Amino acid sequence: MNVLIVHAHHEPQSFNAAMARLAQTVLQGQGHAVQVSDLYAMGFNPVASAADFQQRANPDYLVYALEQRHGVKGGTLAADIAAELDKLRWADLLILNFPIYWFGMPAILKGWIDRVFVSGFCYGGTRIYDRGGLKGKRAMLAFSLGGQAHMFGPGAVHGELQTLLQPIQRGVLGYVGLSVLPPFVAYHVPYISEAARHECLERYRQHLLSLDERPPLEFPSLDDFDASLRPLGGA
Amino acid sequence: MNVLIVHAHHEPQSFNAAMARLAQTVLQGQGHAVQVSDLYAMGFNPVASAADFQQRANPDYLVYALEQRHGVKGGTLAADIAAELDKLRWADLLILNFPIYWFGMPAILKGWIDRVFVSGFCYGGTRIYDRGGLKGKRAMLAFSLGGQAHMFGPGAVHGELQTLLQPIQRGVLGYVGLSVLPPFVAYHVPYISEAARHECLERYRQHLLSLDERPPLEFPSLDDFDASLRPLGGA
Repeated sequence: MNVLIVHAHHEPQSFNAAMARLAQTVLQGQGHAVQVSDLYAMGFNPVASAADFQQRANPDYLVYALEQRHGVKGGTLAADIAAELDKLRWADLLILNFPIYWFGMPAILKGWIDRVFVSGFCYGGTRIYDRGGLKGKRAMLAFSLGGQAHMFGPGAVHGELQTLLQPIQRGVLGYVGLSVLPPFVAYHVPYISEAARHECLERYRQHLLSLDERPPLEFPSLDDFDASLRPLGGA
Repeated sequence: MNVLIVHAHHEPQSFNAAMARLAQTVLQGQGHAVQVSDLYAMGFNPVASAADFQQRANPDYLVYALEQRHGVKGGTLAADIAAELDKLRWADLLILNFPIYWFGMPAILKGWIDRVFVSGFCYGGTRIYDRGGLKGKRAMLAFSLGGQAHMFGPGAVHGELQTLLQPIQRGVLGYVGLSVLPPFVAYHVPYISEAARHECLERYRQHLLSLDERPPLEFPSLDDFDASLRPLGGA
């Protein structure tokens, strides 16, 4: 299996960076090929802009998704996007490894999605969800956060974790056809002891070793919607 | 009233940019003071990093939120963050004006949140939600998207819009104590006629003129949670 880990933490000594290194070691130990895109180390530019296209379908007015399609077709996407897209094509499993910032991805990682999940390859028109362009590949979130487990759930102060993750897990990963494995969650990381951190990494190791036993999350099937994406059967 | 519009679209001719200009005109017309942070025009850097702190509490290991607190206290935040923070302090109403990218904010705007919503001023410890640092101010999302209204809702292909917005409206804006007004949503923008766009802008004008009549969204009150943020009353 080919694995792409996209890692988005600014501190190489962090627990989050240790998670990324552990995943690389464990998966390589199982005989898989692993590439890591360390976005901070690469100085990755997360801002979607006109500079992302070496040649424009419409030089006078930028419709980003249309230029993505044009760029994919003509091979004229900016070099840094093309390089990440090559890794994505190569990968069977995509792991997004990041600290939760504001109940979502850090901007540097959100921008990797904005720029690399290109229309015309990852999705397009109604080629979404179970007809998405990355169908057949898998993905997984691996993240650390400051909050504790009891702060998430029905009636909990921050609400349900799966609701907070829905825009990413369903709206990004599921949308492009990826089969999404249950996330690995490292709670309360800035506040726990060294021993608890080791335990947490051990829990991640077990998670990584049992990926194939974990049933993916369920998302809509386009079989249940008509051509204009209205639910069939009067749902 | 002082209004800060944070605008995040790369194309000045876009419908989304027209929304930002309209808001400025309408609100100024009502006698309010308006500042606009046009993030693309400013070349705003959305990447949270060590460079955000002119002086570090711990130069050897970067814990971003701790350095934010240190930077707020000592007045040593990077100049671009300090400038945005001044606007935020000044504002009574914050409008985030953006196109939906992947059911969320474009990276350049997410990074504005990551860097400007600093710990030690906007929040800190249990100074969150109705005890947040920006309590007393209001906020509102104004966004455009490609999808149509029928694609959102219970049983709809993309699920419920309010669920997709929860990480932003509750997790970002509500978290820091902002009173969050109902969003303005411009559906299907890339595909609609010029006439339909004008209608949509007119709808936004009416929305802006009636802000005071719109009850804010409801979020948790810390009165219902104990000191460790567990629900009181065995919820």
